[in-house]
Amino acid sequence: MPEIGFDEASEVLAAQPFSVLVGARLVTYERDRAVLEIPLRQELLQQFGFVHGGVLSYAADNAITFAAGTALGPSIVTTGFTIDYLRPAQGTLLRAEARVVESTKRRALCRCEIVSIGDDGTEKVCAAAQGGARSVDLSR
Amino acid sequence: MPEIGFDEASEVLAAQPFSVLVGARLVTYERDRAVLEIPLRQELLQQFGFVHGGVLSYAADNAITFAAGTALGPSIVTTGFTIDYLRPAQGTLLRAEARVVESTKRRALCRCEIVSIGDDGTEKVCAAAQGGARSVDLSR
Amino acid sequence: MPEIGFDEASEVLAAQPFSVLVGARLVTYERDRAVLEIPLRQELLQQFGFVHGGVLSYAADNAITFAAGTALGPSIVTTGFTIDYLRPAQGTLLRAEARVVESTKRRALCRCEIVSIGDDGTEKVCAAAQGGARSVDLSR
Amino acid sequence: MPEIGFDEASEVLAAQPFSVLVGARLVTYERDRAVLEIPLRQELLQQFGFVHGGVLSYAADNAITFAAGTALGPSIVTTGFTIDYLRPAQGTLLRAEARVVESTKRRALCRCEIVSIGDDGTEKVCAAAQGGARSVDLSR
Repeated sequence: MPEIGFDEASEVLAAQPFSVLVGARLVTYERDRAVLEIPLRQELLQQFGFVHGGVLSYAADNAITFAAGTALGPSIVTTGFTIDYLRPAQGTLLRAEARVVESTKRRALCRCEIVSIGDDGTEKVCAAAQGGARSVDLSR
Repeated sequence: MPEIGFDEASEVLAAQPFSVLVGARLVTYERDRAVLEIPLRQELLQQFGFVHGGVLSYAADNAITFAAGTALGPSIVTTGFTIDYLRPAQGTLLRAEARVVESTKRRALCRCEIVSIGDDGTEKVCAAAQGGARSVDLSR
Repeated sequence: MPEIGFDEASEVLAAQPFSVLVGARLVTYERDRAVLEIPLRQELLQQFGFVHGGVLSYAADNAITFAAGTALGPSIVTTGFTIDYLRPAQGTLLRAEARVVESTKRRALCRCEIVSIGDDGTEKVCAAAQGGARSVDLSR
Repeated sequence: MPEIGFDEASEVLAAQPFSVLVGARLVTYERDRAVLEIPLRQELLQQFGFVHGGVLSYAADNAITFAAGTALGPSIVTTGFTIDYLRPAQGTLLRAEARVVESTKRRALCRCEIVSIGDDGTEKVCAAAQGGARSVDLSR
């Protein structure tokens, strides 16, 4: 498991064209925990003016992957996740914070909360997710 | 439940800025079934050249929502979903097909398969999802 | 992957003390598909007289595991699953039917529907699940 | 929302025949948190001597339901849940601890960890779940 630090993890995010399209940035990358932030803009919304569920699910997917990466290293695949939407998301910023619940050498299970932050700084949990990743052994 | 047809459903999709950003189009919208397609381009990939998991989860979220809409009408919220990734997705087109498993007046549970289509037309299931929506009673 | 047939799979079920306690029986075990049935009795209910959710989730767990076993052989572990409850279950019999959605040499993803069967033979889908298993390589 | 206390909640559990069959007992029932324990015995195992996944999923289902009940009152239905198995469970006791992540007047989302406790008191997280419940308005 070749661990990587915050700078290298940020480079991984920057090397994901879809993350660049969405506008995600890495805020925290430390053992068992990763935080992504997405500044909200009109392009990320759905027809009622709220953040599109697909943006929330992207954020969950990627925060879980990065959190798992802090435990397993960068050679991993996300196996899947569950997301429960709690309230419509709006505001100026979206924050996805994921933590490792449990990890072994080859697997990690993570949980993630997605918080929307309003103009006045009010934070609201708008979705919660659980999902996992496993390391990909390239030699096999 | 004011039902809508394919044209109106297409307008809903076009009114979702994030769906426009991703480039999704509605292909089928009939009772208990909806199909979305996403032409693949470089902006939708991750660092290894495969389609980003967030694109797959967007596709699952939205196909489930539209399929639920065929049963519940357009005033709905998606409550959440589970997605399992089966293989890396690549090719020229992504297709997300969702069906209603069971619906009542106010709730629908759907399943969705996401298929990648290669240059040569080969189709591969790359993710499977299950999730639901409920109608939002605006009078309450 | 040493495949097993219906008789051997039935012996596996009979060797699960909890399945004996619940009263599950194997009805179908063929490539990519397994069906379990549970005759309903008072001990399987909750406080309102419906089948306890834990019985439904047991049925989903085990039907998924057996379906995965038809593809992967008996040396597997279930990695997890999602279950959505659709309506209260009651009647005389519970049937859990699981199918493999996709499998590789080491992994299988399955879906399962749980149907309750009434005194008059009426069938109602009361839950739907999705989950997976992976083979356990004992030599590693 | 008619709230109930620990004693009444224990009576609810005792009124669930399946919970009696499994042998579950309520240990904690306080705002936003419920803990169930299940003394392990041979009848709860699978063919390899570990606790059957169906017991873990029962524990998750019911702990989530009781935790949701602390926020929503007793007239609720569980809508579903996801469970990820982390390691084989064995020992003398199983403990399922569920907490409310977020609740509104009519809905609650909970998370649950299932811990196995060995002869020597060693605790191991063997599964993690996420799921929700909604209140049932009997007047509608």
